[in-house]
Amino acid sequence: MGVVTQGRGPGPKQDRSRATRKRLLEAAVSCLAEHGWAGSTVSVVAERAGVSRGAAQHHFPTREDLFTAAVEYVAEERSAALRALPDQDRAAVVAALVDLYTGPLFRAALQLWVAASNEEQLRPRVTELEARVGRETHRIAVGLLHADENRPGVRETVQGLLDMARGLGLANVLTDDTARRRRVVAQWAAMVEDALG
Amino acid sequence: MGVVTQGRGPGPKQDRSRATRKRLLEAAVSCLAEHGWAGSTVSVVAERAGVSRGAAQHHFPTREDLFTAAVEYVAEERSAALRALPDQDRAAVVAALVDLYTGPLFRAALQLWVAASNEEQLRPRVTELEARVGRETHRIAVGLLHADENRPGVRETVQGLLDMARGLGLANVLTDDTARRRRVVAQWAAMVEDALG
Repeated sequence: MGVVTQGRGPGPKQDRSRATRKRLLEAAVSCLAEHGWAGSTVSVVAERAGVSRGAAQHHFPTREDLFTAAVEYVAEERSAALRALPDQDRAAVVAALVDLYTGPLFRAALQLWVAASNEEQLRPRVTELEARVGRETHRIAVGLLHADENRPGVRETVQGLLDMARGLGLANVLTDDTARRRRVVAQWAAMVEDALG
Repeated sequence: MGVVTQGRGPGPKQDRSRATRKRLLEAAVSCLAEHGWAGSTVSVVAERAGVSRGAAQHHFPTREDLFTAAVEYVAEERSAALRALPDQDRAAVVAALVDLYTGPLFRAALQLWVAASNEEQLRPRVTELEARVGRETHRIAVGLLHADENRPGVRETVQGLLDMARGLGLANVLTDDTARRRRVVAQWAAMVEDALG
C-alpha cells in the first residue's frame, strides 16, 4: 500500500497525520457544542479523539488554535455540502439554509462566538472567522436562490434571511423549536420569493 | 418621613430592601453582559452593587436565582418601555423592536441562554423564562404593528421578524454591525409592511 501511494499523493505518514487532525477537529466541535467554552480544553478533546495530549499540541499549539480551526473546518464541510445541493425551488433552498443553523456546528460556533465576546484572546480570531464564513455563506445563498444582487433590496433580502436563520438557530438551542420554525420558514420563504421576483 | 409613609405603602425598610434588590439585579445584568456566566458569581455582583454577600444571599439564595431574576427584571423594564412607545409607522416600530436585541439586556440574556444549554441546573429555569419573555414580546409587537393575527401568515410574519431581530442581535455581539443592520431592517420592514397589508 505504501508503494502504491508513493509519488501519487501524500504518503501514509501524512495520511495518518491528516486523519489525526480531522479526529481532533471533530472532537473539538462536539465538545464545544456539548460542554461550552468553559468545559472545552485541549486535554478533554485529545482524550475524546483518542490522541495523546502531545500529538494534539503538535497539531494545535493553543486552545484558541484548536477551537477556531474546528469551527472553520466544519464550516467548510457545510459550505461544500451546500454547494452540492441540487437546483431546487426557493422554498426548499430557504429551508436548507435555515437547517444549517440548527445542528451541532451552529451550537459549537455559538459557544465560541459568545466566549469571544468576553475573552480578548479569542475575540479577533473569532471575529475574522465569522466574517469570512458569513461572506461565503452569503455568496452560496445568492447562487442557490438565483438572486440578482444588482436589483435594489436583493442583497439585503438575502442578508436578512441569513440573520433570521441565525435567530431561529438560537431559538432552537434550549428547546426543540422545529414545528414553530417550519411555519415561520414557510411564511418567510413566500415573502423572500416576492421580494426576489 | 417614616410617619408619612406608614400605612400608605411600604415603609422605609421595605424601600431600602427594594432598592438593594434593584441594585443587585442591575449589577447582575451588567456583570453577565461583560464577563459571561463563567465570570458571574453572587460575590462579584454583591461587590459591584456595594452590598454585603450576606445581604445578596438573603435576596437571592442561589446564583441561578440571582441571574434568572436579573434577566427577567430587565426584560420587564424593556416591555414597559415598549408598551409606552408612541403610535408610529411600521418601519419605526420594526426599527424599535430590532433595537431591543442590540443592547446589554440581549447580551446578558444571550450569555444566560448559552450557559443554560450546558448546565442542567440552569436549563429549565431559563427555558421557562425565555418562553414567557418571548410570548410577551410577541404580544407587544402584534399590538405595535397593528397586526391582525386572524389573517393567514400574519402570526408567522411577526414571529419571523422577532427571529430576525435576534439574529441581528447576535451579529452585533462581536462587532458594531449598525450600518449593515440599518439597510437590512429597511428592506425587511418594507417586506413586513407588504405581508401585513
